[in-house]
Amino acid sequence: MNSKKGRQTAELGEAVYIKAHAAVVGAKEGEGPLSEDFDMIVSDDKMGQKSWDLAEGAFQKTALEIALKKANLQASDMDYVLSGDLQNQCTATHYGLRDSDIPFLGLYGACSTMIESLSLGAVLISSGLAQNTLCLTSSHFCSAEKQYRNPIEYGGQRTPTAQWTVTGSGAAVLSKSGEGARITHITTGKILDKGVTDITNMGAAMAPAAVDTLSAHFRETGRNPDYYDLILTGDLGIVGSELLKDLMKREGFNIDNNHNDCGKMIYDIEGQDVHAGASGCGCCATVLCGHILREMEKGTYKRILVAATGALMNPLTVLQGESIPAISHAVAIEI
Amino acid sequence: MNSKKGRQTAELGEAVYIKAHAAVVGAKEGEGPLSEDFDMIVSDDKMGQKSWDLAEGAFQKTALEIALKKANLQASDMDYVLSGDLQNQCTATHYGLRDSDIPFLGLYGACSTMIESLSLGAVLISSGLAQNTLCLTSSHFCSAEKQYRNPIEYGGQRTPTAQWTVTGSGAAVLSKSGEGARITHITTGKILDKGVTDITNMGAAMAPAAVDTLSAHFRETGRNPDYYDLILTGDLGIVGSELLKDLMKREGFNIDNNHNDCGKMIYDIEGQDVHAGASGCGCCATVLCGHILREMEKGTYKRILVAATGALMNPLTVLQGESIPAISHAVAIEI
Repeated sequence: MNSKKGRQTAELGEAVYIKAHAAVVGAKEGEGPLSEDFDMIVSDDKMGQKSWDLAEGAFQKTALEIALKKANLQASDMDYVLSGDLQNQCTATHYGLRDSDIPFLGLYGACSTMIESLSLGAVLISSGLAQNTLCLTSSHFCSAEKQYRNPIEYGGQRTPTAQWTVTGSGAAVLSKSGEGARITHITTGKILDKGVTDITNMGAAMAPAAVDTLSAHFRETGRNPDYYDLILTGDLGIVGSELLKDLMKREGFNIDNNHNDCGKMIYDIEGQDVHAGASGCGCCATVLCGHILREMEKGTYKRILVAATGALMNPLTVLQGESIPAISHAVAIEI
Repeated sequence: MNSKKGRQTAELGEAVYIKAHAAVVGAKEGEGPLSEDFDMIVSDDKMGQKSWDLAEGAFQKTALEIALKKANLQASDMDYVLSGDLQNQCTATHYGLRDSDIPFLGLYGACSTMIESLSLGAVLISSGLAQNTLCLTSSHFCSAEKQYRNPIEYGGQRTPTAQWTVTGSGAAVLSKSGEGARITHITTGKILDKGVTDITNMGAAMAPAAVDTLSAHFRETGRNPDYYDLILTGDLGIVGSELLKDLMKREGFNIDNNHNDCGKMIYDIEGQDVHAGASGCGCCATVLCGHILREMEKGTYKRILVAATGALMNPLTVLQGESIPAISHAVAIEI
């Protein structure tokens, strides 16, 4: 029986297995410390397409195809595909998946999208309305940079708090049947706006949302942070992760020993000159669907809590002087 | 018991009632033929805000508040709110709902958003994970026009196939308990791209998606179009509606007698000079949550099928020469 635990957390009564997962990344990500765990490293960040925008869609399409192959399933076996991305009107997703022939549910959760996708993909299975769902998302450094910041060719200087948008896509096939890693709990975030206005410091804008969602998860499930072998955030980077750990202590939860952040993991931060770390929908997606789920299969982790965070502004609202609302969604994955 | 009927249609085993609904519109919509059915008509399209972008969010916030009041429920009674809009990164939604304090799931379905929201809001209830969900969306003529087309002040000429974006927001409270109108079936669309590249003819771009989803619904449920008192599309307008009816006949389904389109209903098309009709996420949302659900309560309709359609491009992809992918999601509502 599915049941609600408090306001934000849902406990899934029916088993929802992660049947397969895949991560496809660009050249820079392929040179980072997790390179061995990605299913494909693409040297041409344009993926043979005529624009970065279409290239990002091609990353999604490729991740979807590899995930299906690893699950030994066809597109026709998928009841729903759930995805979204950072491009205006989520066009990477729509162009990338326009030939997929799978009932599609479009999401916008900024960099929290991978976990929103896993959350709703899991709900559809646990509700009895799906046997299999495909959950994915992507980001692309070049399509994000030109849309949110400056033209690439301009070579704008980056601030020390800036994060590098991951080029890549991660995809997971969820299934009613299977073995191994299961999604057991979903904690859905609220929109939170703490008044941060610095668009070059996303970690600070998003950390309070992660604090809110993680605290809700611990309160509502009655679990301590120690229950989990790993508490993984999406892309808070170095600045946001420090804020998170401090703010969590004020809420009465110490996560110093078992916290890590995808934004701190995918690049060699000093060697690859990425300032405060990595970001983008593809950051949590590729680190989770590449590295972390493999580590679970190896037995490194048995219980993890993954909270991705998204900054919900756009460049126009920031120019208009608005602060940056944020959100964080979490799922618990256990073997 | 929830069950899947074929590939795209889900039959909800648990009752999901539309407990309350509200529609808030701008001045032009308030001068149209449905004016008596809206909960609020706002003479200031800026809603007292400093930008059209924020004004659109204020429309959502107001529609949400009125819907809650009519349901005699508080924000704290809502398990989830599901919304999205047409602004880049869905900022109308994020700024409009940032104080709502309800677990939030962000959607992007372009003008199909209202039905995507009702679909997932209903699934969350029928899965046992929610007692109440709030489903809404909005659009705003001015925020859409400047983002997708030309600055308002430029006064660009409109083509005969162009549609007028509705200024307004529609909201519905779905609930496990209640009486009257219920969501019984959900038919989820696939992304479809038939190669249309004319950004001023959205009806033509979106009609094939509606054909695909409506045909799937009839095939998978075994129902004839005659089963429904009304088959309502979201915003195909005059051009798209004619295409729809023709294309449906080729699929073997005659909907000439019971089809209508929200884009043909909200304005006095000739008198208000809106060319091929209305469009925007707010079109289906306000016509459904204002007019149609009231008519169901009056007994005019007992069984309706509502299919909203969304065009999934952005202005950049069109400039890059890409065609326009589209999607259509449908829900069956019965008393």
